[in-house]
Amino acid sequence: MKKQFHFTPGPSELYPSVASHIQTALKSGVCSISHRSSAFKEIYAHTTRMMKQLIGVPEDYTLLYFSSSNEIWERILQDCVSRGSVHYVNGAFSKKFFSFGMELGKNPLEIKKDYGIGFTESDIRTYKQLEMVSITQNESSTGVYTNTDFTKAVKTLNPNVVTAVDAVSSFPYAENHFPETDILYFSVQKCMGLPAGLAVAAVSPHAFQVAQSLEEANKYNTSPYHSLLKMKVMADQHQTAETPNVLGIYLLGKVAEDMLTKGLSQIRLETNQKAAILYQWIKDHPDMEAFVDVKEHASSTVIVAKSKRVEEQVKALLEKGIIVGKGYGKFKDQHLRIANFPAHSKELVYQIVDTLTPVRVI
Amino acid sequence: MKKQFHFTPGPSELYPSVASHIQTALKSGVCSISHRSSAFKEIYAHTTRMMKQLIGVPEDYTLLYFSSSNEIWERILQDCVSRGSVHYVNGAFSKKFFSFGMELGKNPLEIKKDYGIGFTESDIRTYKQLEMVSITQNESSTGVYTNTDFTKAVKTLNPNVVTAVDAVSSFPYAENHFPETDILYFSVQKCMGLPAGLAVAAVSPHAFQVAQSLEEANKYNTSPYHSLLKMKVMADQHQTAETPNVLGIYLLGKVAEDMLTKGLSQIRLETNQKAAILYQWIKDHPDMEAFVDVKEHASSTVIVAKSKRVEEQVKALLEKGIIVGKGYGKFKDQHLRIANFPAHSKELVYQIVDTLTPVRVI
Repeated sequence: MKKQFHFTPGPSELYPSVASHIQTALKSGVCSISHRSSAFKEIYAHTTRMMKQLIGVPEDYTLLYFSSSNEIWERILQDCVSRGSVHYVNGAFSKKFFSFGMELGKNPLEIKKDYGIGFTESDIRTYKQLEMVSITQNESSTGVYTNTDFTKAVKTLNPNVVTAVDAVSSFPYAENHFPETDILYFSVQKCMGLPAGLAVAAVSPHAFQVAQSLEEANKYNTSPYHSLLKMKVMADQHQTAETPNVLGIYLLGKVAEDMLTKGLSQIRLETNQKAAILYQWIKDHPDMEAFVDVKEHASSTVIVAKSKRVEEQVKALLEKGIIVGKGYGKFKDQHLRIANFPAHSKELVYQIVDTLTPVRVI
Repeated sequence: MKKQFHFTPGPSELYPSVASHIQTALKSGVCSISHRSSAFKEIYAHTTRMMKQLIGVPEDYTLLYFSSSNEIWERILQDCVSRGSVHYVNGAFSKKFFSFGMELGKNPLEIKKDYGIGFTESDIRTYKQLEMVSITQNESSTGVYTNTDFTKAVKTLNPNVVTAVDAVSSFPYAENHFPETDILYFSVQKCMGLPAGLAVAAVSPHAFQVAQSLEEANKYNTSPYHSLLKMKVMADQHQTAETPNVLGIYLLGKVAEDMLTKGLSQIRLETNQKAAILYQWIKDHPDMEAFVDVKEHASSTVIVAKSKRVEEQVKALLEKGIIVGKGYGKFKDQHLRIANFPAHSKELVYQIVDTLTPVRVI
């Protein structure tokens, strides 16, 4: 089988060092060690140390490991919300978090924009009585980016809320503000370039205090399996309650270390360069235009183009061994979604552009 | 680093073919494919087909994939129990499932035996009004085995309950009765010899009916993330709601296929042979005796010995590169726990025996 390159917005191409780290893991028995052993605790501590550096999170934040960001949505709502939550919705994933709030009876408030439109500080209100504000930094479904300053502005106006930032497809590209961001969460199969099945939440002391106060008021929806407060007790000992995805936690620490060695500023620079190439190409293409037309809201990590030739373009790339995403949901036949993650080389980005640039007859 | 062999009762030694399947997965891009692609659906369908054969489950059962058996405990209680559940408790894990019932306010009834003592049919009562009976087939904490006929007897006396069988460290060694077993669940890092981070539940139509009737009575504790009824809708399409552990699901299907090729009867035969060697050695050893003294309750897959020389024996084995488990919880310094999974070769079992057999002075 010909080697294929995945530019799908997650799962996507593996970070270049992953295969080698998996070989090391297999040789050194990482998949066989007990999750109660000191060897596991060392792996856990290493991953947490590297990830804290990569996130740029204050030392008093706690990193918790889940199996997916969907799970994190449920836990945030159960543990930090009793009276109600606010959800900035402008795509399928922000909408789904809101719908989780509905299903859990958490009285969620939806602040809605059309898909493709970003939020600005003028959309922020004072939310009295509500405990949590959900901000989707990068809508993977539509490629709309909301600047990290937005979270800061929400928190400034609402110092008591828990700000929960979905950085699923923007981490570690976006530079977040702490402690204005209380919970930053993401899955590892997007920008981190790792096998799916693991998600991370960095949780502030303030978020734990809110959970604690709900527990004291008997309004804490206790899950015996995973609750923020119980998970923190285990995390403080470099442990998890259940047998976790040991290999996933190991690989995350290794790739985080590799990214730190390369340098976040270099990763951001390269991401910006590749995004500029892709957006310029979309602009110049006779049959395409950027779905997000306001430049400051056009994502650098998930590039979405309206196209009149989706089917044909996907096929042409596939012949070169390159797989890109089609539009999400109702946009399936109208959009191309191209991931621009650290694992995606500039050479392959040029190959996409070259393959899909129409030949001009002079 | 010298190669180490893990006889810990999970995570444990990888099944011999796992490393090679991981190489194939890396080469063929399994970790990068979209979980909405037809390629993923084929992997999902293959794993489910192989696993149904390996479990020996009727065609109308549904296989659901979770991240750990701890998670499965929570979902069973949330989805199948409103009035109360029955828990046969004779070790740390059966106890923990019971405690989950307490935390969720599910009115659990504990039927208790001392650690190390098995259940027999004389322990079974008629459980009116209660919806679920939890049976731990193999207590990984103490090595007590409860025969599969026990589940059949529970169901015969209580045809309306959901029988939930924890086969975490007995699957696929034990041959279960269907449809008397409604939910059979296990994690993949024990007898399947796979990296941790995935658990499987085979769920009967009857269990879904109970969940459905609770939903209709508004007593269904709906989790927007994972509920049996919603997961079934996705499973029927060879899909999951969230981005799942794709690599884990792929490897599970491959190892299940390998085990079917080898043959379950051969795996059971080898397990029995290795167990016989270990129990005979424990019996003959001057400083050891089997923790479970009733033969029919002595597990064939997790062999637990009381020992006067735990520390010394663990150290002697470690020098040979063999890692065994110490006792669980309060038995830490009093027991050796030795996993006897399909991945453990007879040669290494002999090496344990030889290393720890005292030299007789003639």
